[in-house]
Amino acid sequence: MENERLKKQIEFLKEIDKLKQVFRQTLLMDGTRHENDAEHSWHLAMMAMVLSEYASEKIDISHVIKMVIVHDIVEIDAGDTFVYDEKGYEDKAEREKKAAERLFNILPEDQANEIKGLWEEFEERKTKDAKFASALDRMQPIIHNYYTNGHSWREHGVKSYQVLERNKIISEIAPELWQFINDILEDSINKGYIER
Amino acid sequence: MENERLKKQIEFLKEIDKLKQVFRQTLLMDGTRHENDAEHSWHLAMMAMVLSEYASEKIDISHVIKMVIVHDIVEIDAGDTFVYDEKGYEDKAEREKKAAERLFNILPEDQANEIKGLWEEFEERKTKDAKFASALDRMQPIIHNYYTNGHSWREHGVKSYQVLERNKIISEIAPELWQFINDILEDSINKGYIER
Ligand SMILES: [Ca+2]
Repeated sequence: MENERLKKQIEFLKEIDKLKQVFRQTLLMDGTRHENDAEHSWHLAMMAMVLSEYASEKIDISHVIKMVIVHDIVEIDAGDTFVYDEKGYEDKAEREKKAAERLFNILPEDQANEIKGLWEEFEERKTKDAKFASALDRMQPIIHNYYTNGHSWREHGVKSYQVLERNKIISEIAPELWQFINDILEDSINKGYIER
Repeated sequence: MENERLKKQIEFLKEIDKLKQVFRQTLLMDGTRHENDAEHSWHLAMMAMVLSEYASEKIDISHVIKMVIVHDIVEIDAGDTFVYDEKGYEDKAEREKKAAERLFNILPEDQANEIKGLWEEFEERKTKDAKFASALDRMQPIIHNYYTNGHSWREHGVKSYQVLERNKIISEIAPELWQFINDILEDSINKGYIER
């Protein structure tokens, strides 16, 4: 191939295939296996399309979709850090920054900057689009846990108060989704999926 | 939950989790297992972001991304039809239409219509965005086959002339990507991954 630019782009698209082998703590809804980051990212894009009306500030759905599509690519090198793993969170930012440098720089410079920009925006959680994207990313595993009888909550001894504490920011970003999360947590306590 | 609209939306998001269990003919790039439709759809969204500059007509990337994100959901009911399976193609349209009715209508009516509209646009391949989305969907398995030593070509005895015949529309939609496909097919013949 003579086109050097296309060569880099294809190399990047080949490299990110590895995201399909980065497994998360959550199970698929049918409970048969752990979910991987690529299919999780796809699911978040669908959530963005379906749940955007609940954002308390007007958001740009297309921009949210782009962010959720790229947000986990760094985990190809940095691995998935479980949201309640305090130790893992200590060096998460550093590991992911290094991963972003290696992975996104496979692309031509202009595109590396564009995609790194989307990832940084997501990580900083400052813009209203990034906040909404992050709310979906936090909400998705809660729904998966609910429908798999609390699988990863039970496996890691996560308590309901921790889920509420860790995710309370959603109450500002999308109040109705926060209400929904509270409802399914209450139901999860009643059903014995999680302790209060 | 009292919010009937949100209830339908969550039910839909739960139902489409099944796309993660619809497996395709292509292997992951590392050859370890078959790819599923959810991670394939994510990969196409990344391809749209990275390769849009090769579209011969000006396209709306965000619209292309939305289309590729939803385009395979019907396969939850209809299954994946291998692109060189002539028998499977006979009733593909009918099976997928029925699937679209059941799956998208889990959503509130306005959203069912919106997402059905994206799916229909993709299927009809008439708009320039749909043509480009379709070109990516055709190109992705060719790249996967190339990097997995022609796995599904060999498994099904697919010949190079069939790949070219079946996908020649890409020459108009994205000439440089078509050139790339021709290059890797030629290399695949030389390496014994596929017969001419
Ligand atoms: Ca398909």
